[in-house]
Amino acid sequence: MPDEFDLIAKYFAPLAGDEGLGLQDDAACLPARPGFDMIVSKDVLVEGTHFLKGTSATGLAQKALGVNISDLAAKGAVPSVYFVGLVLPADCSDEWIQAFAEGLALGQKRFGLSLAGGDTTTSNAAEAALVISITVVGYVPQGQMIQRAGASAGDDIYVTGTLGDAALGLLGLLGKLGDDPFLTDRYDLPRPRVSVGVALGAIASAAADVSDGLLADLGHICTVSGVGATVQQGLLPLSDAASAALKTDEALHSYIYSGGDDYEIIFTAPTGKHQEIRDLSTEVCVPITKIGTVEKTKGIRLVDTEGKIVHTNRVGYQHFRQDNTR
Amino acid sequence: MPDEFDLIAKYFAPLAGDEGLGLQDDAACLPARPGFDMIVSKDVLVEGTHFLKGTSATGLAQKALGVNISDLAAKGAVPSVYFVGLVLPADCSDEWIQAFAEGLALGQKRFGLSLAGGDTTTSNAAEAALVISITVVGYVPQGQMIQRAGASAGDDIYVTGTLGDAALGLLGLLGKLGDDPFLTDRYDLPRPRVSVGVALGAIASAAADVSDGLLADLGHICTVSGVGATVQQGLLPLSDAASAALKTDEALHSYIYSGGDDYEIIFTAPTGKHQEIRDLSTEVCVPITKIGTVEKTKGIRLVDTEGKIVHTNRVGYQHFRQDNTR
Repeated sequence: MPDEFDLIAKYFAPLAGDEGLGLQDDAACLPARPGFDMIVSKDVLVEGTHFLKGTSATGLAQKALGVNISDLAAKGAVPSVYFVGLVLPADCSDEWIQAFAEGLALGQKRFGLSLAGGDTTTSNAAEAALVISITVVGYVPQGQMIQRAGASAGDDIYVTGTLGDAALGLLGLLGKLGDDPFLTDRYDLPRPRVSVGVALGAIASAAADVSDGLLADLGHICTVSGVGATVQQGLLPLSDAASAALKTDEALHSYIYSGGDDYEIIFTAPTGKHQEIRDLSTEVCVPITKIGTVEKTKGIRLVDTEGKIVHTNRVGYQHFRQDNTR
Repeated sequence: MPDEFDLIAKYFAPLAGDEGLGLQDDAACLPARPGFDMIVSKDVLVEGTHFLKGTSATGLAQKALGVNISDLAAKGAVPSVYFVGLVLPADCSDEWIQAFAEGLALGQKRFGLSLAGGDTTTSNAAEAALVISITVVGYVPQGQMIQRAGASAGDDIYVTGTLGDAALGLLGLLGKLGDDPFLTDRYDLPRPRVSVGVALGAIASAAADVSDGLLADLGHICTVSGVGATVQQGLLPLSDAASAALKTDEALHSYIYSGGDDYEIIFTAPTGKHQEIRDLSTEVCVPITKIGTVEKTKGIRLVDTEGKIVHTNRVGYQHFRQDNTR
């Protein structure tokens, strides 16, 4: 593997924006943007845990960037700069790094952000897993971050796009389901809903991205908001490919509401916002579907068309609030 | 190992400041500070590469935080918040995480910063190395970041504290040198020079922290500044413990100018600033020693008392500038 400085110069410096100072310094310099809050998210992806060994470097870079941008999108933020930390196996090739940088370049171009810094290192461990840590920085107008804590009883619950595609795609990649290119692509390449997120700043009462699974992420919103929710299974938006897969096996239904990696936005909004949300959906060409209602009763209830409970979720991380000393 | 949300609630949420929103959201919210630039640094530490397997969790947390704060200190920035990414072995104990969080708490208290977010994950790899990725955020008055690029021919070169202690301490820990508690402590616990760094904002023309080794870090400054330097070996500041170690083995001398992990600040300043720097040294009770001169001739030359060259350093990452498209 080439020297760290060579790597930075050859592959990463061309990705740097003004804030990154050409990646020639120990730190980045981000000027204040009066009137804006900075929104920061950090995610760590580990080979074998978050992605399959052997995933293409270009795809991986786009996925790692997309996963982080999705966090910002759900907060209503426009991504601006990011930092990359890499732990590479000692035998990592020059070609791999070049392909990874190409993936970052593609992601940057799609979402209009630039590299500001990072750290590239190797692991001496015999079977070292590749680790990618990204910190992404974006901005919202002051005070307009869409927090998780903000849902009120009576609010409607909405979700963008379709659900379960990525989880079914992963099953395909693992050979446990017929391989469908649409579904595997949904697993491989997150498409964070940045334009929807920005517009939701003035609409949503609470939001999160769907990364852990619909009911889990809704659970996070409800727990910190001190409310519960009922979700109608019959309203969950499905892609054609997911619908087809479900017909082959009844047991796959749980992947729709529990599968992760969709990177859609789940949000709550007062009922009065319904028309505004329909208009937004049309404007940005992204389906936005009402799937349930926020209620006073804690817990998340998934019900079928007859109102029968299909699934309940544990009440998020309830003791979180008790232990939090703030 | 406990659930990620349990971990966050129990050990990390108590470390969060306002920006971290109680670690209950997907992202942190940092309000703009008009009149200040935000300085951001990210470092990744890998077990076996950056620290020895079996290092105490409390010590490790303090070290990881210290290494990052040192980057900010050398830029003249006051640390404010940080983000922690962790890749833990699957069999990591609750006690280890508690001890790690205690180390973060100690570091926070010493340097006046708070936790704003992060990501905790596990690796499924059989021999997974522990990985700690920290992103630290600080502030300088607008336009006052001390960059690497800024040294001019004729500037004096200074370094804080003493050199080579950490590298000699590591030799002790590895059993290759008599164990000296002062030296091993210098390796284990970085003491970033925050107060010196802040004061240098109005004094230094360029600065970096001594993490890769004195000559390497000076090389980085000189390369991006387009200059060279001559350093007087006889002027390099030594601790009593390092002096004693050098007397036992002549070959150890190179550890003084090439050993890493000292986390002192190396900086350049116009000759007219000499008295101001002496006064600063007295005021903050940190030795600051003039060790050489910036020159037009590229390359770093280490010379003995007779002016004979002891060591020359490659001219940093020279092609960096050629490949950088900015």
